[in-house]
Amino acid sequence: MTRYKVTVEYDGGPFVGWQMQANGASVQAALVEAIRRFSGEDVEVRGAGRTDAGVHARAQVAHFDLAKEMRPDQIRDAINHHLKPAPVAVLTCEAVAADFDARFSATRREYAYVIINRRAPLTLDAGRAWRVPVPLDAEAMHDAAQVLTGKHDFTTFRSVQCQARSPVKTLDRLDVIRAGERITVHASARSFLHHQVRSMVGSLKLVGEGKWSADDLRAALEAQKRSACGPVAPACGLYLVGVGYDLV
Amino acid sequence: MTRYKVTVEYDGGPFVGWQMQANGASVQAALVEAIRRFSGEDVEVRGAGRTDAGVHARAQVAHFDLAKEMRPDQIRDAINHHLKPAPVAVLTCEAVAADFDARFSATRREYAYVIINRRAPLTLDAGRAWRVPVPLDAEAMHDAAQVLTGKHDFTTFRSVQCQARSPVKTLDRLDVIRAGERITVHASARSFLHHQVRSMVGSLKLVGEGKWSADDLRAALEAQKRSACGPVAPACGLYLVGVGYDLV
Repeated sequence: MTRYKVTVEYDGGPFVGWQMQANGASVQAALVEAIRRFSGEDVEVRGAGRTDAGVHARAQVAHFDLAKEMRPDQIRDAINHHLKPAPVAVLTCEAVAADFDARFSATRREYAYVIINRRAPLTLDAGRAWRVPVPLDAEAMHDAAQVLTGKHDFTTFRSVQCQARSPVKTLDRLDVIRAGERITVHASARSFLHHQVRSMVGSLKLVGEGKWSADDLRAALEAQKRSACGPVAPACGLYLVGVGYDLV
Repeated sequence: MTRYKVTVEYDGGPFVGWQMQANGASVQAALVEAIRRFSGEDVEVRGAGRTDAGVHARAQVAHFDLAKEMRPDQIRDAINHHLKPAPVAVLTCEAVAADFDARFSATRREYAYVIINRRAPLTLDAGRAWRVPVPLDAEAMHDAAQVLTGKHDFTTFRSVQCQARSPVKTLDRLDVIRAGERITVHASARSFLHHQVRSMVGSLKLVGEGKWSADDLRAALEAQKRSACGPVAPACGLYLVGVGYDLV
């Protein structure tokens, strides 16, 4: 048995999310099935982050164990061949130590949230970004976002379905950067609560349109209750863009 | 009658191209129909560049004349309402002088061609870029591209169906820029020949994979014959990103 680490890109649009569910196609199930088709083995594929329905990944990381002996690049190509036509692709594949765990070994998750700030409907970016027609002040959003960085109780920005034991997380980066009509929110932490990025982005949008001040955002954080959160931003703007592992 | 200038974005994937044709849906026809639905008027919509089937636009420019009196922002919203669900959107609309012509007044066209240089299939970028699995040397492509800038007879890089009177054009910019796996070719000129950008990109790809030197590219240009061109790059990677007009 060899353990493999794969980096996976996907369009989250057609999926119920990363994780296998009874009610529809998942990215995880697509990978399990593609691996079974070329290897004949039923593997467990474990991902670093359980992205929700509609959430995309540029670089999800997952691992699985395989008895069949093949070069990692052949495994990558074989999985990709059998994944077609699902919008999922293995970018890289490498053999790793047997104690590597895509989820528990991860020490950093990076997300990007894309807003297109314009009145016209989306064409090329449809399903790839959140269109916000009212003008947003991205600088005010960035300044207010700094209220959320550091170690806090993020109960306000956590789904009521979140299963994490503690609502306390350390948010290392929350930057809001505008390039023309495109506003990208970059978020980085060791780990996130369920719906945390989308909840923070939804509240930052209120800051951007002038409905909330940075102090209002701080008050929402300090309230430590879900009802203090702004409307949660839609899934289609969210991308898992990287997972980090400490070098041993 | 008032003349309006519109900036239009579209996903070229589902269309036979910008221009109306008997054999399928065109972007031009979608705009004509959307304008007819809210105004009751049959207008002619003339674009700055006739993009081919599958070619995208971030900022095509077009004009049309309308008798109905409405504010330009209302016209933009009305067209967008009636364009749904076609992946075409009017980004801006403004009233212009009656002698403004989107095509003949244009003094600059800018295109971007996107290559994703990787082995894995595309997911989020499917239909939005040309995937090239062999490693490309983008710096060599950029250096060679400078052979093509300036005033030349571009017969080599021109479709045999091209209807332009002269094959002589002045190419002002041809830059090749890599950002990770993404290689973007930026091309700018007063005007281009039919298939010129895709022909140049196809030949630059040969340079990128080491099959052609910059001297080979120069020889192809100087041959002034279509058969000297490399394979034409696919339409899905090409974007009309801007049209310029001289200020009067």
